[in-house]
Amino acid sequence: MDVFSLATPPLLSNYDVLSILSQSYSHPLQGEKNHGFEVLYHSVKQGPISTKELAEFIRERATIEETYSKAMAKLSKLASNGTPVGTFAPLWEVFRVSSDKLALCHLELTRKLQDLIKDVLRYGEEQLKTHKKCKEEVVGTLDAVQVLSGVSQLLPKSRENYLNRCMDQERLRRESTSQKEMDKAEAKTKKAAESLRRSVEKYNSARADFEQKMLDSALRFQAMEETHLRHMKALLGSYAHSVEDTHVQIGQFLSPISGPLDFEAYSAAALQEGKYVWAWMPRLDRGAEGG
Amino acid sequence: MDVFSLATPPLLSNYDVLSILSQSYSHPLQGEKNHGFEVLYHSVKQGPISTKELAEFIRERATIEETYSKAMAKLSKLASNGTPVGTFAPLWEVFRVSSDKLALCHLELTRKLQDLIKDVLRYGEEQLKTHKKCKEEVVGTLDAVQVLSGVSQLLPKSRENYLNRCMDQERLRRESTSQKEMDKAEAKTKKAAESLRRSVEKYNSARADFEQKMLDSALRFQAMEETHLRHMKALLGSYAHSVEDTHVQIGQFLSPISGPLDFEAYSAAALQEGKYVWAWMPRLDRGAEGG
Repeated sequence: MDVFSLATPPLLSNYDVLSILSQSYSHPLQGEKNHGFEVLYHSVKQGPISTKELAEFIRERATIEETYSKAMAKLSKLASNGTPVGTFAPLWEVFRVSSDKLALCHLELTRKLQDLIKDVLRYGEEQLKTHKKCKEEVVGTLDAVQVLSGVSQLLPKSRENYLNRCMDQERLRRESTSQKEMDKAEAKTKKAAESLRRSVEKYNSARADFEQKMLDSALRFQAMEETHLRHMKALLGSYAHSVEDTHVQIGQFLSPISGPLDFEAYSAAALQEGKYVWAWMPRLDRGAEGG
Repeated sequence: MDVFSLATPPLLSNYDVLSILSQSYSHPLQGEKNHGFEVLYHSVKQGPISTKELAEFIRERATIEETYSKAMAKLSKLASNGTPVGTFAPLWEVFRVSSDKLALCHLELTRKLQDLIKDVLRYGEEQLKTHKKCKEEVVGTLDAVQVLSGVSQLLPKSRENYLNRCMDQERLRRESTSQKEMDKAEAKTKKAAESLRRSVEKYNSARADFEQKMLDSALRFQAMEETHLRHMKALLGSYAHSVEDTHVQIGQFLSPISGPLDFEAYSAAALQEGKYVWAWMPRLDRGAEGG
């Protein structure tokens, strides 16, 4: 029910008019202090900021992974400098290989993230163009907000004027003033009623225009936001996929580490290959040759 | 068969003696240039070096993990500074939490590795004491090596002298020299044979002593090496266990990341909570109120 769609205000009783006009002129979409549109638009404008922040976040993560990878490559070098003599020596090769693999996995993640940053930045540029276009398209809504706001401010004055005329007329009637005076007052009331009616018409028209434009803008914002979230979802999916992939890769060679820790098997192999001086020692158990 | 356990050298034919004495005097355990013991001992001495290198390796790894952990904590802060407005805002909390968890996992690994370094250093000190004790105990073997080496150098001279006397005797016999000269030569041969016999006895005695001491040392080295490898195996097992534990922990919260990426569920939740301005927008789809 629209409180201002009154066909003939002068026919209403004063009490009805009072009751109707005491209601708010504010449309729920206008928001507090007419900032409804601003709030919506501000929310939409966060999109490009989120995209920029996501790129920064991924860039930082890529840097962290690169640093880790380089440190692991350095650790691999430390392992390859391990003393090449003694029974423990072959273990250094295991450390070297596993550190190298770990370095490689994190380097691969770094590269994937660097590629992803490019995707994010590309989307960010696209998004900025969409936002620029949107800003041009919604400027009419901002105008409609201002028109509605202006018209809304005129209404109380018209109402005040109309109420004052009604009360004047009522007072004259009670004071049994001359018919001429009464006619004069009634004419004034009618004029005030007509003025109020025009204000209400203007308000209703501005309101209808505002609602249509606000609805258009809101739907546009919603569509943009949905597209934005779909893009961000795809980018985050790619991020999560890369991180999980790396985790799975690392898991695949973490297990073999425990393999070469089986010294019994390792010693047996070393003995067979006869690589180490130590290898011939157990023969002493069976007594030295000759003698 | 010991080539030098000859009861009566002078009774042997020259050819037999030549054949026997052309064989090597070197005991297989003596090694090239008598360095057999040195090579074994050198191999054993690598133990403490390996322990020291392992501590360095783990320390470097702990430093790498600490650096990674700190960088992740910084990344978490970056995520918590993400714009708090807009539909994407709640995702920053997901990033913050997952970065924090990752930082914590790597910090825990750092601490485990730092504890492990203490274990390695403690074992290293223990090992150095064992090695010092061992060095004192095997000094007798080194003496035996030198005695055997000295006696082995005397043998060729004795052999040379004996062979020369035999040849002198044979030459005189062929030249049909006087019986007096022949007796004189035979006495010289007998003396040389006696000298060679004594040298062989000395050699056999030194060789027996060397073999016993070398066997004792070798068994001692072997026991030390086995103990060393058992210790290193336990330390490496702890290292591998910590690294694998961290990997499993990370795997447990990597999956939940993909959960909050489900924007549909997230948007629905946001709408229900009515936290965001955006939340009331879809109502516009059903037409604005009033009008």
